[in-house]
Amino acid sequence: MQVHIISVTFEAAMTLSPDTPPLAFTDLADAVDALRQRGLRVSTPRRLVLEALFAAEGPVSAEQIARSSSLEPTSVYRNLEAFEQHGFARHVHLGHGPGLYVLVGHGEREYLSCERCGAIRTLTPDQLDPVRDRIRELFGYRARFNHFPVVGLCPACAGEREPGEAADV
Amino acid sequence: MQVHIISVTFEAAMTLSPDTPPLAFTDLADAVDALRQRGLRVSTPRRLVLEALFAAEGPVSAEQIARSSSLEPTSVYRNLEAFEQHGFARHVHLGHGPGLYVLVGHGEREYLSCERCGAIRTLTPDQLDPVRDRIRELFGYRARFNHFPVVGLCPACAGEREPGEAADV
Repeated sequence: MQVHIISVTFEAAMTLSPDTPPLAFTDLADAVDALRQRGLRVSTPRRLVLEALFAAEGPVSAEQIARSSSLEPTSVYRNLEAFEQHGFARHVHLGHGPGLYVLVGHGEREYLSCERCGAIRTLTPDQLDPVRDRIRELFGYRARFNHFPVVGLCPACAGEREPGEAADV
Repeated sequence: MQVHIISVTFEAAMTLSPDTPPLAFTDLADAVDALRQRGLRVSTPRRLVLEALFAAEGPVSAEQIARSSSLEPTSVYRNLEAFEQHGFARHVHLGHGPGLYVLVGHGEREYLSCERCGAIRTLTPDQLDPVRDRIRELFGYRARFNHFPVVGLCPACAGEREPGEAADV
């Protein structure tokens, strides 16, 4: 079973990302273990950044982490960079703002982002595979939406119903 | 015929962009006329920025325009901002670098961008409509790729043939 999970993670990385393959971990203790196994020292700032990433419900900026953890922004950035290099986190570009960071322990996530209201919809890669397949058929590009999302108008801003949503009677 | 062209431009803007609808113009003289019709003064710096945008073969950075035209970067930025506000140009986010600018006089363009080698493929919106339709069916999002492109690996970096390309024999 463990072997199966590792194989899926590896495949997803090969399909989606030219970057460091994501590591699998389930909770903070597990992530701390994984950090140590990679030979990374688990300093107090590093643990605080990790806690902030676990506490965040979605992608979060380095500035938000610095505020919530009372750490220096430079320390937060340094740790986020180490997390990215070792496959613990990745940054996502959602709109015009700074890059946002997210843990990848539960597997990759991809994003749809509304450029009018800023709404972010988080998806698993298999949900976007039909879109990825269409792009590959048409242009040979292997698209991924975990680093740069699909940008457009969300159903509310586009004045449309979400697929499957009942029509007003 | 002129009415038909205006209608198409307007439709594309309504479908794709919550921003200023793009203006139609064919060459520098035409664009200068359009600027004047919008009540914009055509100063020497403004004309130089416009010339640089026409000379560029694809999206170009404000810094590149400043270098090629020997203008102050602040003056270039100010003019690019005015061009965007009035539907003459738009900026595109291609990768991690600064926003790049492109004229929209010949109609909107959308982009595929390779995050490994930086290759940019320019497409007309109808070429990406099948992808857009799939996203709309699945998620109700109205995607557009003229401001934030589809990012992934180009066929060469993905080690794949482009669709329609002959197999090696």
